[in-house]
Amino acid sequence: MSFEHQRHKPPRELSRPRELLVVCAPLRSNVNLSRIVRAASCCGVERIICTGQAKLDRKIARDGADAIAIETHRTLPPVLAELKRDGYRLVGLEQTTDSCDMHHYQFPRRTALVVGNERTGLTPELLALLDDVVEIPVWGMPYSYNAATATMMALYEYCRQWPEG
Amino acid sequence: MSFEHQRHKPPRELSRPRELLVVCAPLRSNVNLSRIVRAASCCGVERIICTGQAKLDRKIARDGADAIAIETHRTLPPVLAELKRDGYRLVGLEQTTDSCDMHHYQFPRRTALVVGNERTGLTPELLALLDDVVEIPVWGMPYSYNAATATMMALYEYCRQWPEG
Repeated sequence: MSFEHQRHKPPRELSRPRELLVVCAPLRSNVNLSRIVRAASCCGVERIICTGQAKLDRKIARDGADAIAIETHRTLPPVLAELKRDGYRLVGLEQTTDSCDMHHYQFPRRTALVVGNERTGLTPELLALLDDVVEIPVWGMPYSYNAATATMMALYEYCRQWPEG
Repeated sequence: MSFEHQRHKPPRELSRPRELLVVCAPLRSNVNLSRIVRAASCCGVERIICTGQAKLDRKIARDGADAIAIETHRTLPPVLAELKRDGYRLVGLEQTTDSCDMHHYQFPRRTALVVGNERTGLTPELLALLDDVVEIPVWGMPYSYNAATATMMALYEYCRQWPEG
């Protein structure tokens, strides 16, 4: 085996469009949002829905800022209702009662991953609109992942399940 | 189903110690290192090996900064040799020739995950010491994950394979 660094290795190709959307409740940090944009773009996600201010730090989001369609909305419930009509399963990412362990969750191909605020998480109003909530197991301090970190892990898991799109 | 936010949900318990170590080449950014520390601590990792300056931003690393043993070394090759003698498989995280797709890689329980610098990756000197290199599929711009983001995805995948430790 010979391991030689390939800095600009060509990406994979999807055999059909990626049907994963990321939906963000108002985040405190544009850094977290920008990290999510870069990772989601790397995963082939085409559309992110944000609420509130959605100013990207382009040094963090990199080309993801241009490659992905970023829609901003004042409030999420009408958007979630529309996504639901379009056949998306609304999957929250949060530590809640009745949540599924992400290790055992089968993501529907048409998933809208709904990410909560770093401090307050997803509001009860939003939680009530979701079909499922998944959470990522935690074994140590500080007992919860950063919101962007949890999002990257969920993006990874979805893509692991749907490598072809 | 009723989804109610549980802000301080108790963590999982490992049934035996987590045998995953994270080894970082000199990183450019203490922010990335601090993010890795928080996520690794959440995953039950007990030890991180760093090179060069390893100043943590405690607002990012949170309690992970105290929960995890952080060792700093001037250079990695002697440390990697010692880990190898201790039975660790040395697994790099990088886009290289002959790397394995992480979706199909079975992590040995005793793994030292070796993370490269954000710009330059793992040096040829370090790559030559590794047993395996894994990479995470990428489908879109900017065609590579941030170093800390890739580390979180690898932590997640390892823990998915070894949920009990």
